[in-house]
Amino acid sequence: MIVILKHNTQEEKRNQLIGWLKNQGVDVHISQGEYQTVLGLIGDTAKIDKDLVASLDMVDSVKIVTDPFKCCNRKFHPDDTIVEIGDVKIGGGNFCMIAGPCSVENEEQIVAVARSVKASGAQLLRGGAFKPRTSPYDFQGLKATGLELLKIAREETGLPIVSEVMAVNDLPLFDDVDVIQIGARNMQNFDLLREVGKLRKPVLLKRGLANTVKELLMSAEYIMAGGNEQVILCERGIRTFDDYTRNTLDLAVVPVLHELTHLPVIVDPSHATGVAKLVRPMALAAAACDADGLMIEVHNDPMHALCDGAQSLLPEDFDKLAKEVKAVREVTGK
Amino acid sequence: MIVILKHNTQEEKRNQLIGWLKNQGVDVHISQGEYQTVLGLIGDTAKIDKDLVASLDMVDSVKIVTDPFKCCNRKFHPDDTIVEIGDVKIGGGNFCMIAGPCSVENEEQIVAVARSVKASGAQLLRGGAFKPRTSPYDFQGLKATGLELLKIAREETGLPIVSEVMAVNDLPLFDDVDVIQIGARNMQNFDLLREVGKLRKPVLLKRGLANTVKELLMSAEYIMAGGNEQVILCERGIRTFDDYTRNTLDLAVVPVLHELTHLPVIVDPSHATGVAKLVRPMALAAAACDADGLMIEVHNDPMHALCDGAQSLLPEDFDKLAKEVKAVREVTGK
Amino acid sequence: MIVILKHNTQEEKRNQLIGWLKNQGVDVHISQGEYQTVLGLIGDTAKIDKDLVASLDMVDSVKIVTDPFKCCNRKFHPDDTIVEIGDVKIGGGNFCMIAGPCSVENEEQIVAVARSVKASGAQLLRGGAFKPRTSPYDFQGLKATGLELLKIAREETGLPIVSEVMAVNDLPLFDDVDVIQIGARNMQNFDLLREVGKLRKPVLLKRGLANTVKELLMSAEYIMAGGNEQVILCERGIRTFDDYTRNTLDLAVVPVLHELTHLPVIVDPSHATGVAKLVRPMALAAAACDADGLMIEVHNDPMHALCDGAQSLLPEDFDKLAKEVKAVREVTGK
Amino acid sequence: MIVILKHNTQEEKRNQLIGWLKNQGVDVHISQGEYQTVLGLIGDTAKIDKDLVASLDMVDSVKIVTDPFKCCNRKFHPDDTIVEIGDVKIGGGNFCMIAGPCSVENEEQIVAVARSVKASGAQLLRGGAFKPRTSPYDFQGLKATGLELLKIAREETGLPIVSEVMAVNDLPLFDDVDVIQIGARNMQNFDLLREVGKLRKPVLLKRGLANTVKELLMSAEYIMAGGNEQVILCERGIRTFDDYTRNTLDLAVVPVLHELTHLPVIVDPSHATGVAKLVRPMALAAAACDADGLMIEVHNDPMHALCDGAQSLLPEDFDKLAKEVKAVREVTGK
Repeated sequence: MIVILKHNTQEEKRNQLIGWLKNQGVDVHISQGEYQTVLGLIGDTAKIDKDLVASLDMVDSVKIVTDPFKCCNRKFHPDDTIVEIGDVKIGGGNFCMIAGPCSVENEEQIVAVARSVKASGAQLLRGGAFKPRTSPYDFQGLKATGLELLKIAREETGLPIVSEVMAVNDLPLFDDVDVIQIGARNMQNFDLLREVGKLRKPVLLKRGLANTVKELLMSAEYIMAGGNEQVILCERGIRTFDDYTRNTLDLAVVPVLHELTHLPVIVDPSHATGVAKLVRPMALAAAACDADGLMIEVHNDPMHALCDGAQSLLPEDFDKLAKEVKAVREVTGK
Repeated sequence: MIVILKHNTQEEKRNQLIGWLKNQGVDVHISQGEYQTVLGLIGDTAKIDKDLVASLDMVDSVKIVTDPFKCCNRKFHPDDTIVEIGDVKIGGGNFCMIAGPCSVENEEQIVAVARSVKASGAQLLRGGAFKPRTSPYDFQGLKATGLELLKIAREETGLPIVSEVMAVNDLPLFDDVDVIQIGARNMQNFDLLREVGKLRKPVLLKRGLANTVKELLMSAEYIMAGGNEQVILCERGIRTFDDYTRNTLDLAVVPVLHELTHLPVIVDPSHATGVAKLVRPMALAAAACDADGLMIEVHNDPMHALCDGAQSLLPEDFDKLAKEVKAVREVTGK
Repeated sequence: MIVILKHNTQEEKRNQLIGWLKNQGVDVHISQGEYQTVLGLIGDTAKIDKDLVASLDMVDSVKIVTDPFKCCNRKFHPDDTIVEIGDVKIGGGNFCMIAGPCSVENEEQIVAVARSVKASGAQLLRGGAFKPRTSPYDFQGLKATGLELLKIAREETGLPIVSEVMAVNDLPLFDDVDVIQIGARNMQNFDLLREVGKLRKPVLLKRGLANTVKELLMSAEYIMAGGNEQVILCERGIRTFDDYTRNTLDLAVVPVLHELTHLPVIVDPSHATGVAKLVRPMALAAAACDADGLMIEVHNDPMHALCDGAQSLLPEDFDKLAKEVKAVREVTGK
Repeated sequence: MIVILKHNTQEEKRNQLIGWLKNQGVDVHISQGEYQTVLGLIGDTAKIDKDLVASLDMVDSVKIVTDPFKCCNRKFHPDDTIVEIGDVKIGGGNFCMIAGPCSVENEEQIVAVARSVKASGAQLLRGGAFKPRTSPYDFQGLKATGLELLKIAREETGLPIVSEVMAVNDLPLFDDVDVIQIGARNMQNFDLLREVGKLRKPVLLKRGLANTVKELLMSAEYIMAGGNEQVILCERGIRTFDDYTRNTLDLAVVPVLHELTHLPVIVDPSHATGVAKLVRPMALAAAACDADGLMIEVHNDPMHALCDGAQSLLPEDFDKLAKEVKAVREVTGK
């Protein structure tokens, strides 16, 4: 940790601070410049409250030089983590296509979609059973029944299943779900993160609407600190002033995360844009910048089909997209 | 709900949509303009999925004309809600000063701060026992012990206590806490909102870092839909491109919320700015624009005092501020 | 234009508003719902001040249903605009690679970079002569001399040149520059837009740091309304809360602009990210989502080369990237 | 300047960088930590390109420790600047009320508004003659005629006048305008800033929609570096994800600017919110947090009055507000 003091700091104040820092168990190197004093803290600086020090009147700024994340840090674990779900692999050069409907609606729907996306090359089936809804009056999902229907679709197709959990007390219902999804609104639900950290099954962690890269990594760290190392990160759009798409898909995060962490990074273009016709271009872009997978909404509902819209693709569109994604990945050398 | 169709929509597509809408149980009024067709939906439009309709190729945009929030809507409940905690009232012209340390550290600290803020006119004591921390390696609070220490401070001073809950399974520990706080990161933890909605005690609901006014009201609605009508809203800064304060305090939300809802609205200038010397000006500004209360961090810790900083005020600063806040409220006529 | 009135609007107030609207020369259709009244304005609504109407106490919201942009609107001009610069074409399926150094430094540098990027397939040479700098104390570019050096490089290589203009009074210096760039900070310098609208040469218009898609199109409209129809739009990153790249590259804007306008849309991954190693992945992503071109910083300066960094690529990296971009475009079917 | 190198930097690379830095004329102090190396640069670091250094592969981050702004920096000029316009003073404890219509419409209007706001205590008259409009098809103001009408209103009332300039070539028309306003969209129109820096009259500089505090100060620096020291800064709302007001008024910037600079800081609640009924609470909040003045839109147009809305206040509302602002300032001790 580096502490930069303001120009006009009194020596007495400065010495009080240095004394206090040393009491916390760190060594302090003083480097006196023309316009400022720089304190370099050596030792176990994790105990020092950065915000507290930064807020002192005499302090210009504080710079953390060691990353606060350990388990997910590529520095300490240079090889890509490969998350395995049965025969399916994500990461380390293994690209994974996850597809399925926004919500599980009934057996016919989920089985039909599962068959169709499997035929197009999807390796995992997604489907919402517990739905995070802004309004308490909106449909909240089929819940336990939805999970049962997903399992039927798995039995029919062999596709492992991914579904979102919203509450610690619902976790037992997910015992037989292959990948547990933590949604964007729960990215900093630390209680839930801690609990899935106790499990030994893959967790798909979505980036929050307004969370930084470091915060995403620290949330992965909550899970991994509990011993669960099978974490898949997912970019799904951030909230900005932009109003022409639901969220702003932040693709540069993919190569940035690849540098900072060994965990696989996938992209959800359906939720990021909220518009079906933007799913294809954004999926191709994600594949081109080296995402480890895509999570795409596909429906086969004639009502939606009639409408020719929503953020979900029709099975035939998904089939075409899957081929294009494969072609892009071949030429970008991954 | 109003649906604006694109210029070049084929009549057949348009009729399919109208047919589908009527099947959902609403009447459709068609108004044909030179460049667009406007569909006015009459009846119970709550069942219609706005996002689905908006994402159709033929649809330019969809406008919801009835507010999705009911219980907290001033239209249906014109009088201010006054939340009562023992003798303390918030809302309806009753201003409430909530003060206390960021974290409960030990009995001596919390009792001393409680006495001091009470002497300065605070009506509620705040103190963190369960702390939401970005890092799993940071201090997570004294937890149950912290709550016990708060109760001791309450016994010593008579001040009712406010503390943050982070997990549904911790709620039993809060049985004897007077006001339950839901932090910014949990504003859309719908599971937790639903559970505190089952209680019959005041909930202080903080606005999330990147949540809109409507989302804040919908989260209040989750609590109130469960029958718990004692909700206090709290603005504590939003995340923007700005980097000179921890968050951007959004004070215009205070009069805007007063128009939309009957619930009391308070402001937390300590967390919003993260800098002690900005607490006074932002607290005065909040009082001037008619907030129903303030939530302010106060410490009496000599280590912090030495440092003359952090986002917490010293007791003597709080005392001076409380007097100024009172004076501002007198001249702004509330 | 559609005006939605609030629930409790008095009939007298409503009639005053309708009378005033009719005085402005529009017809008003009234549609009375259970909870609101919707006014549909028919006729020349361009004269009506939307903001004024929206701010009335009785008005819930106002919805513009006809696009405010005409010249650049695909509705009125369905075919792609192809901007031609000598033999070079941008748009309508013609992909264009623009490359060159951030700043023109000297003849040797600019000629060497020009030769190298030409050999790699670049069709236009970029180079900054007038530099927008946040600080008045920073290097402001070689100005007129820089433009002369660009012309020498053009003579040596045949590559047409692109350079940024910052002031109306400098425009005469750009008489012999092939494409005039308007930088992000000047996207709403309406005076400058109007002046380049009087020219008959291509203008490369960069999106402002915090400007919406509609604002970008309206700025193009300023240029086109003056009769200059050769406008190239450029996405170069927006300002968000994100702090790990200089800006957040907003690639979904590419397909969105393709739908709204017939103008070509290119992407500048160098300025968007500010980091050399992110240029390749973001350039490939832009190509995959159907951008009409890329604008990439390339240097050959040994000092920079030593440092192996900055947001500029080395010539050999650019060469490799150009091949990959071509391959991506081939498989994405453009 | 402090340069923090990454953990695994090769010594050869490190030495190359140090050699290059020394060639730029600075001394380099090396401080070797367990996990990183910190280089402290001593001497004239202004010549070193921070972005270039920061983007090097081996560099973790760069920290500027001396402020890039000099003329407007309170460190070098501790006393408040008081800008004087005739008898009117802004700054150094002198509060200034600026009021007037959004646009100058005709003589009757501007003279009537001027008389009314003067009677209520306004000290400066504002009025738009050149209007920045997103659309080229919208009314662009009365231009030169508008300025002439403002001068008539000045003659009638004695109030000095403030109006916005949008183009360098229009500056001669402003010879007899008392305060020149630079609008938010032109905050980084460096050409225009440089030109008003050559004048010797007060400039009111509005913060851009998405500009940081440092960028605002650097734009003031452009003006002051030209020798014009009479700069008034103005907060007028920033662009965020929020959608319930036109912009988000960022009041914490007022005390922050007071600490960083000696220049006066005023607030424009009319443009920040875009809603008349929010002007009063935000004006009072600005006064409470120690702004040096307010800029408020006032109209007397019966059409607007009919509508009882817009972002402009009626004269009687302004009169009441002016009294309340005065009362707030009295109790907050300024």
